Amino acid sequence: MRESEIINLFLRHLKRQGNLPLGDDAGAIKLGDEWLVATNDMLVRKTDVPGIMTPEQVGFKAVTMNVSDVAAMGARPIGFLFSLGVPGDVNVEYLEGVARGIGKALEFYGIPVLSADTNEADDLIIDGIALGRTRRLLTRSGARPGDLVCVTGDLGRALAGLLVWKHELKVKARVRNALYEKLLEPRARVEEGTALSGVATSAIDVSDGLSKELHVIAEMSGVGIEVEAERIPVRREVLEAAEVIGAEPLSLALASGEEFELTFTIRPELAESLDFECTVIGRVFSGAGVYITTEGKRQEMPVLGWEHLSRGENGTYRGVFR
Amino acid sequence: MRESEIINLFLRHLKRQGNLPLGDDAGAIKLGDEWLVATNDMLVRKTDVPGIMTPEQVGFKAVTMNVSDVAAMGARPIGFLFSLGVPGDVNVEYLEGVARGIGKALEFYGIPVLSADTNEADDLIIDGIALGRTRRLLTRSGARPGDLVCVTGDLGRALAGLLVWKHELKVKARVRNALYEKLLEPRARVEEGTALSGVATSAIDVSDGLSKELHVIAEMSGVGIEVEAERIPVRREVLEAAEVIGAEPLSLALASGEEFELTFTIRPELAESLDFECTVIGRVFSGAGVYITTEGKRQEMPVLGWEHLSRGENGTYRGVFR
Repeated sequence: MRESEIINLFLRHLKRQGNLPLGDDAGAIKLGDEWLVATNDMLVRKTDVPGIMTPEQVGFKAVTMNVSDVAAMGARPIGFLFSLGVPGDVNVEYLEGVARGIGKALEFYGIPVLSADTNEADDLIIDGIALGRTRRLLTRSGARPGDLVCVTGDLGRALAGLLVWKHELKVKARVRNALYEKLLEPRARVEEGTALSGVATSAIDVSDGLSKELHVIAEMSGVGIEVEAERIPVRREVLEAAEVIGAEPLSLALASGEEFELTFTIRPELAESLDFECTVIGRVFSGAGVYITTEGKRQEMPVLGWEHLSRGENGTYRGVFR
Repeated sequence: MRESEIINLFLRHLKRQGNLPLGDDAGAIKLGDEWLVATNDMLVRKTDVPGIMTPEQVGFKAVTMNVSDVAAMGARPIGFLFSLGVPGDVNVEYLEGVARGIGKALEFYGIPVLSADTNEADDLIIDGIALGRTRRLLTRSGARPGDLVCVTGDLGRALAGLLVWKHELKVKARVRNALYEKLLEPRARVEEGTALSGVATSAIDVSDGLSKELHVIAEMSGVGIEVEAERIPVRREVLEAAEVIGAEPLSLALASGEEFELTFTIRPELAESLDFECTVIGRVFSGAGVYITTEGKRQEMPVLGWEHLSRGENGTYRGVFR
């Protein structure tokens, strides 16, 4: 069964939902004049963790991926919970590393652990839960025609790093370090998310790749989005790695998941007042679909995941834009 | 590694905790003049689910076990989240049954699902999370000398039912039904928990067996507890099954876990005003330890779990009290 089939199966039976229907970065309920935001994300070592990650990085990331969803709702994180599935033959040093990573992440984000549970399981599993609060909820469905489309940070390093590691490609140490920093130690955009809460019209965190996130915002907001390829922030190291990988930098940037950057829409007159770094990459229009303009050519943006970048027989990736 | 070792390992690294330290039924943080209560509990099919349970009962129980922890804090449940680990070869009907069970439980407890996540895993895993709110938190640490010790409902049916099923013992249909009802379809004591919030001095839900829970309250409150064996509420069906099982009814009642009854302590003058059924089983004294009086004989109460009721060679359970 595919994940989407499982989700649909459950949705048929879950009629009671919060004040915000399922389908956003996190769920939310109104408590007095504030919103309580809650999200959870399960990390299974065998399928979700590249072998290169240290246990400490694994623990830190289990917190980051949940805090990022809270931030994408415009909420300030207020607490973390986790459940562990632990195999009988688990390595104690590994588990200690995971614990250290979770502890460091809680310090980094300034949130307490509220509850923890441990069980025996076949895989090492960390199910993380983050709670947050905000006065004004930032959803995926508020984008309006005329809004600018923006993104924090840069994109593509996580996927480029994964491919360099997976295929044991040779790149300069400087390049490798820049890619691995994002692949192994991503950080959630908490300050940016809370700053956007009163200002942006919609937001989502880049966990499945920018192209997929833009499609989600367009569909849930009932609008169209157009993006200019050359505006998408890609660091020099991704351009260098892309050549060795044999992939287009643009495809890497659009497909790269678990970046934990925020992409958001905002009225043009409010964009100038933002006090953090971000890049305007496009615009919302009245209509539907997501389009990208590359070298003057406008085309529909495909929904790209890293699984779409299958390697051809000649060892290069199938191009999407050339 | 044992569960307690894993927990201690993590506690060394988790310095940031909520307004209530870890170790209660749920975690809690103060939001304005209310407490937000949060708890999580992972259910692994292979180790936690007796084969006799229908998938719908499994789904319902994943909600009940978390709602019960919220109720034990004196809080009203306000939302549920869950993460699923799903094996690639999972049976669709089974998954559909689990979804139906979760949906029914949310209706039963009147709470919405706020967030759900699904992942591939080797086992079927349901990690449930419940949130609640209350003005006055009910902890495990507030019992005071002179308090009465009470318990809701009756005890022993879950364990007696498990043993009858496991060893394929023959009992009357009436007995089996009564035991299986509690084993397969336990319900959390939400009304009782919220009613106790302003009244009781401490509370805990019976998830690991009454004897263990009483030891936890005694230790965390820094008091002693004495209980009279004949006051512990045990239904006739447990007495009948105990003979066939070859175990003492009292051992069954003290060791039976996942009962989801509440045991609590309360000032004697307030006990009479409770508007729900419960049984006074003992008293809190200034001191330490947990004692039980059986047929006039006072002795220390052992910490009993069902694993302590190992079957002897003659097919009967080792007695603890005879």
